Amino acid sequence: MVNRELLDAAEVLLLPEFLLLPDGPVRDHAVVVADGVFRAVGPAAEVVAAHRELDPVRLDGRLLMPGFVDAHHHLTQSFGKSLAFGEPSEIFRRIWVPLEGALTEENAYVAAKLAALEALRGGFTTVSEAGTRAPVDVGVVAAATQDAGIRCVLGRVCDGPDEEHLARWADSPLVHPSLAIPIPEAAPDGVLRDVSRLCAEAGAVFQIHVNEHLASVERSLEAHGRRPLEHLHEIGALGPQVLAAHATLLTPTEVRLLADTGAAISYNPVASGWKGNAVAPAELLSVLGVRFGLGTDGTRGDAFRLVDAAELAQRLGFGLSSGDSSCGGGWTWLEHATALGADAVGLGGFTGEIAVGRAADFLVVDLQVPELCPSWDLSWELVRLANRDQIAAVFVGGRLRLWRGWPIGWDGPELVAQAAKMAREVVERAPLRRIHPVSVEHRSRVSTGIGGRA
Amino acid sequence: MVNRELLDAAEVLLLPEFLLLPDGPVRDHAVVVADGVFRAVGPAAEVVAAHRELDPVRLDGRLLMPGFVDAHHHLTQSFGKSLAFGEPSEIFRRIWVPLEGALTEENAYVAAKLAALEALRGGFTTVSEAGTRAPVDVGVVAAATQDAGIRCVLGRVCDGPDEEHLARWADSPLVHPSLAIPIPEAAPDGVLRDVSRLCAEAGAVFQIHVNEHLASVERSLEAHGRRPLEHLHEIGALGPQVLAAHATLLTPTEVRLLADTGAAISYNPVASGWKGNAVAPAELLSVLGVRFGLGTDGTRGDAFRLVDAAELAQRLGFGLSSGDSSCGGGWTWLEHATALGADAVGLGGFTGEIAVGRAADFLVVDLQVPELCPSWDLSWELVRLANRDQIAAVFVGGRLRLWRGWPIGWDGPELVAQAAKMAREVVERAPLRRIHPVSVEHRSRVSTGIGGRA
Repeated sequence: MVNRELLDAAEVLLLPEFLLLPDGPVRDHAVVVADGVFRAVGPAAEVVAAHRELDPVRLDGRLLMPGFVDAHHHLTQSFGKSLAFGEPSEIFRRIWVPLEGALTEENAYVAAKLAALEALRGGFTTVSEAGTRAPVDVGVVAAATQDAGIRCVLGRVCDGPDEEHLARWADSPLVHPSLAIPIPEAAPDGVLRDVSRLCAEAGAVFQIHVNEHLASVERSLEAHGRRPLEHLHEIGALGPQVLAAHATLLTPTEVRLLADTGAAISYNPVASGWKGNAVAPAELLSVLGVRFGLGTDGTRGDAFRLVDAAELAQRLGFGLSSGDSSCGGGWTWLEHATALGADAVGLGGFTGEIAVGRAADFLVVDLQVPELCPSWDLSWELVRLANRDQIAAVFVGGRLRLWRGWPIGWDGPELVAQAAKMAREVVERAPLRRIHPVSVEHRSRVSTGIGGRA
Repeated sequence: MVNRELLDAAEVLLLPEFLLLPDGPVRDHAVVVADGVFRAVGPAAEVVAAHRELDPVRLDGRLLMPGFVDAHHHLTQSFGKSLAFGEPSEIFRRIWVPLEGALTEENAYVAAKLAALEALRGGFTTVSEAGTRAPVDVGVVAAATQDAGIRCVLGRVCDGPDEEHLARWADSPLVHPSLAIPIPEAAPDGVLRDVSRLCAEAGAVFQIHVNEHLASVERSLEAHGRRPLEHLHEIGALGPQVLAAHATLLTPTEVRLLADTGAAISYNPVASGWKGNAVAPAELLSVLGVRFGLGTDGTRGDAFRLVDAAELAQRLGFGLSSGDSSCGGGWTWLEHATALGADAVGLGGFTGEIAVGRAADFLVVDLQVPELCPSWDLSWELVRLANRDQIAAVFVGGRLRLWRGWPIGWDGPELVAQAAKMAREVVERAPLRRIHPVSVEHRSRVSTGIGGRA
């Protein structure tokens, strides 16, 4: 076993059994981490020879790989969790907006920190926060993610070009500002265009939800004669600065629009499963060069299960009917969850890869488990077989943040206990409207159906 | 933290925070485990009062729930693993049969024990083994599962009514014999009928793969003018003793046949995703009263991810298009993975439930993790959010078999190391035929495709 203290150093030379580079896993490679970045990456002998001052830390039986990027999250919704299970589409109207509306600043801080802890435990080193609708300063979300130690693309919901937010985080190494308008319907066309253009000028990401539910697509058709993505394009709001959440309901024309404008989307397969109307045609988008990352949408902060779901949803949604047995060959989903996810959230070239100069956002993953024995195809095994319990260590910005699932330097279990208590108070006063009761109660009502087991 | 030694006793009274009963989770309940079974189950005060001689073991923050039943496994295929990823349908012809054919008895023992260890780590306390095609005495598979400590419905591939196998395991509390013919094409009609009828008379399960791939359905149509399930029915081989693997390609007539004959199937959603041609209409089958369990088919020995996939595959395959947002409400998949799975593999009333007299096959699951905080709907959270790393303890037949993912009384890591080495030797000499190279190599060949990222 590796000594945790050896990893938690200002400068460290790591010799993992495998290193996951952009083209795949390699043996006999080493990295040097210092000042928050990878200072060296290369063949072990060369790296060791060039850094005689450092004692190499061997990570036998372990993989060093990029941390995952969650391209779509709502950090302050974490008190809701299973309250949304089984609810029909557009849950934001009945659950999320009322829930966020009931949050105090302290509540929002705890909720966001809980979500950040889950994300880190699940292997994410970056989350893209789509913008809280809680009536709080977005600074509490920034504080929560910084205190938890996760990198955050911090969307702020705005009603106009918010230059202040974009300038506010220059001194925060883990916070990357972004502007957000929840859905196209939420702002006049001019505001949508101006906010999107400001983001383009400032090098920030403009976050918006589009083409997720049939109801909203049809409202857009009724209001504008155009579908949401078509409408954003028509008013001049679509471009490479856009990070459009979901985009599950795409016409061939809209696929073409994404490819031609360079806009990015978040492919959120678990969200499709839990509350969507469709699955984004992600394998097609990948082949056509449409930019996208993978997002949880706050469903489940587990990166390995997210890449697994990303592949499974393509197989079930598209591959079964076309006889496509591989649907991206595993690596497609790893790439879109790491380097290409970083690109989608505006951090391309900054994180998402093990490469010199990139932020040292990475995982140390145990390989000596029954599930990966024997190993024939490590990349694909990470997609289908790996589990968060194999994540020994999570580093963000070169610092050890999690060890064996629990944080370094702050009290994870205490936060969980605090959140459990606080969530009940919040939900009690929030004007939520659920269509169904929770499942145990619902079951007792329907168990007289056909076959006795509806 | 609970002391492991307290759990590993001949007779023990357990007071978990939640107990998962057939109708859902309850608080303030206790169980007494003795002689391999639940001797008492009920309100905590009553159980404690009736067992003054026992010191109650409190399991605060923990759930006690039935162990999962894997209704379809191929234990001796565990050396293949990712070699089958992305391969087109009917992989058994090119990978599994040649691989199993190359196994010695020692190889088969190690492969089966590795699979059993994975299954236990993933929360399964029973596996239904569909019958190895390795040229070995099936006793080595029995030995492996017994030594690992998992309950096994042990299929033996036979070429006629094999009364000897059905009688051989009377003294083995963890082995439940079953007869198997891999596919209808593998035996004459008379043999299929006679083997199936012997199973019916002996109270054993007859295992066979049906209606999994389009190719085999069409071969059956060509040979008999009937689809595989129709053919089994026609020749008198279909009945409640049948456990038919997959049955993904079902006509409405075949759905009706299953319901009318009482035959059971294994619903194997991960196998559909990885190498199937379709997803079984499991929610429909459940409502119509068709008997089924959930199976891994050896894909991934993780029960929580199996129930998650079971729900997700129904949502993506059926619920999205019909606007069914709940697809079984979570509990459906828990039931089919426990009590109804036990029924499907011929162990109904014997395991799969926390009830007096049932085999004490159960899990102790940590609930105090960020992912289950706050908890609003525990049953459904188990389906969508729970992870194998929450399984603190696995009991089979009243004995503690796994603690924190590793076995009690034998050396798990040593087995893993042995299997890793042995698997390479076996695969080297087995005449496997893969259509594609492994993904890293494949990727380097195709990366010049459209968009540079095929």
